[in-house]
Amino acid sequence: MADIDPNKSVGIVAEQFVALFSPPNELVLDNGEKLGPITLAYETYGRLNAKKDNAILILHALSGDHHAAGFYTPDDRKPGWWDLYIGPGKAFDTDKYFIICSNCIGGCRGSTGPASIDPRTGKPYALSFPFITIHDMVKAQKGLIEHLGIKKLLAVAGGSMGGMQALEWAVSYPDMIAAAIPVATTANHSAQNIALNEVARQSIIADPNWKQGDYYDSEPPARGLAVARMVGHISYLSDQAMHEKFGRRLQDREVVSFDLLTDFQVESYLHYQGNAFTQRFDANSYLYISKALDYFDLKGKSDTLAQGLRHVKARFLVLSFSSDWLYPPYQSREIVKALKQNGLSVSYCEIKSEYGHDSFLLDNPQQIRLIRDFLHHVSEEVQSNAA
Amino acid sequence: MADIDPNKSVGIVAEQFVALFSPPNELVLDNGEKLGPITLAYETYGRLNAKKDNAILILHALSGDHHAAGFYTPDDRKPGWWDLYIGPGKAFDTDKYFIICSNCIGGCRGSTGPASIDPRTGKPYALSFPFITIHDMVKAQKGLIEHLGIKKLLAVAGGSMGGMQALEWAVSYPDMIAAAIPVATTANHSAQNIALNEVARQSIIADPNWKQGDYYDSEPPARGLAVARMVGHISYLSDQAMHEKFGRRLQDREVVSFDLLTDFQVESYLHYQGNAFTQRFDANSYLYISKALDYFDLKGKSDTLAQGLRHVKARFLVLSFSSDWLYPPYQSREIVKALKQNGLSVSYCEIKSEYGHDSFLLDNPQQIRLIRDFLHHVSEEVQSNAA
Repeated sequence: MADIDPNKSVGIVAEQFVALFSPPNELVLDNGEKLGPITLAYETYGRLNAKKDNAILILHALSGDHHAAGFYTPDDRKPGWWDLYIGPGKAFDTDKYFIICSNCIGGCRGSTGPASIDPRTGKPYALSFPFITIHDMVKAQKGLIEHLGIKKLLAVAGGSMGGMQALEWAVSYPDMIAAAIPVATTANHSAQNIALNEVARQSIIADPNWKQGDYYDSEPPARGLAVARMVGHISYLSDQAMHEKFGRRLQDREVVSFDLLTDFQVESYLHYQGNAFTQRFDANSYLYISKALDYFDLKGKSDTLAQGLRHVKARFLVLSFSSDWLYPPYQSREIVKALKQNGLSVSYCEIKSEYGHDSFLLDNPQQIRLIRDFLHHVSEEVQSNAA
Repeated sequence: MADIDPNKSVGIVAEQFVALFSPPNELVLDNGEKLGPITLAYETYGRLNAKKDNAILILHALSGDHHAAGFYTPDDRKPGWWDLYIGPGKAFDTDKYFIICSNCIGGCRGSTGPASIDPRTGKPYALSFPFITIHDMVKAQKGLIEHLGIKKLLAVAGGSMGGMQALEWAVSYPDMIAAAIPVATTANHSAQNIALNEVARQSIIADPNWKQGDYYDSEPPARGLAVARMVGHISYLSDQAMHEKFGRRLQDREVVSFDLLTDFQVESYLHYQGNAFTQRFDANSYLYISKALDYFDLKGKSDTLAQGLRHVKARFLVLSFSSDWLYPPYQSREIVKALKQNGLSVSYCEIKSEYGHDSFLLDNPQQIRLIRDFLHHVSEEVQSNAA
């Protein structure tokens, strides 16, 4: 543990799991089906105070998981995905706040999803897993928060799909959160967003190893999933970021050899990312979660987004990135406008960055400062209201 | 033919084919291999004048072909791909100019490509087809122009890949063209361009029916090719265009039914486009041509683009479209800058359009006027020089 500085890192952390919604108290999903028991995987950093009013829920993106900070072993080189933001003295300051990062149902990283064993059959759910929505994910997370004895969260924060969940928390449980920090996200998917996801899904479905989702005792549809991941990666980076990172440089050779095999570096990178992804992600989970993203519509059954947000009480910090073409700033501005139409307290910043959608994961001093100051302000307000 | 107005259309047209580069006069390709005989498919509209100085060569995009204008039968509903631009009184005025639209080698629409029979074996080339470049395509087209008895073209024009060929013509045969009109194109592929093409290629290659390209006596890799085409389509449209065309509307139903099967209209559109493409395009051609696009680099072996253009003599009309994110306007501006550094006559316009890369195919009055006026000017200049 020589390399892990306890003044800068939450240190060694462990996954936790909770079983919720056991029959006969199953979770009733948006499509009417019941799901239970449900396992949720999560991690926590920092300590819950006596009043239990310093808890912040952090939610991850499509391909992320609940390992948001720290290391699993002393030799672990790769910290959690938001380690730059979570830790002692960091934006999500673990000296002050109790941070919970929850996985989502439908996934494949320890929470109940299509690869889980269906207790009724003793076999993996596969496509018999019920259709789930972002709202369903949030309902399951509420079970976790209640299990932890927390009545009201100081904040809910997340980027990309995590940001949609943060928004959904604000709509579904307005009395359970004081603040929300949706980052690099959208109130609903554009046609282009849906189209990109559909290419990914078709790539998985076209893989003969997919077998209508029934592949858990055979070779998984790794080639299809790898191509799906490649599509995703392109949408997470900007043209400019790819230019700076790879340009037109060749892999393993100096000059173009005019054959079908010569690789540009950007191709090798995508191959690597695609293949690595198949080692840690389940193709059916990709189908379910990407559909949940496409169906997400924050306005719900209301005619307008402003109407859909009429019960929201939280104060907001909304962040977007100038070069994010997956969820461009205009999508964040729509959210901000609708929140303001409801008279809510909203801070918004379009952060200038050349690194595209993935900017929210990178070391961005402006994002760090904005989140830190916002949480400080919310925390003080909660303390003074309680006093 | 009641519907075909001879005052507005070139009318019924026929494909033509020419055999060139028969042994021992094969085409020497950029990779050193020889290819011949070569069949090139092409069409012509209008009449070559006695001085043979009114010929314009038009070149198509990746998935296009030599059918640029007119109809094949009286009942034909679908005219050639640039019919809005080619015809009597149109931008490429067939009352004045002799228009040639040439297909390219490596393709699958009548010209020699991977699906053609290799005369040495009596079987399709498949992956034994030699690697070809944009420069090789242009060398073959030069054969066609010479075959037609034309010493100097009035202009070479094309969009997307056709624009690259127009640029390559200007570099390779500076004395054979008076003008060039590269539209919605680039001097070389960005990392993002390469990445998008590589996703398409990986999708084809991952299809088990691809069989290392050796599928001509079995089922072709249609599912992989369909996904490849879907990726392409997304890059041809803008976020805004997709929003206007599809939004979040559902196909064949009113409300989301929360299952994996509900289609958004944009998904149905992509499925249709993907599947239709497999009826008319060869997967191996897609691999070869997309690689040719990725390798294209107008500067050649020069250090800078300006140096690479030092022998160019043509005058230029360069057009880009504001919402084209495949070949964004900055890529056209790089070309314009390098041409101007060589003291060449260049007109440039970034046309405001919300329809993305495909804008160049649509009815755009500004594009029509710019091309018409430019050609008129070039034509007058050529006449006065000849007088």
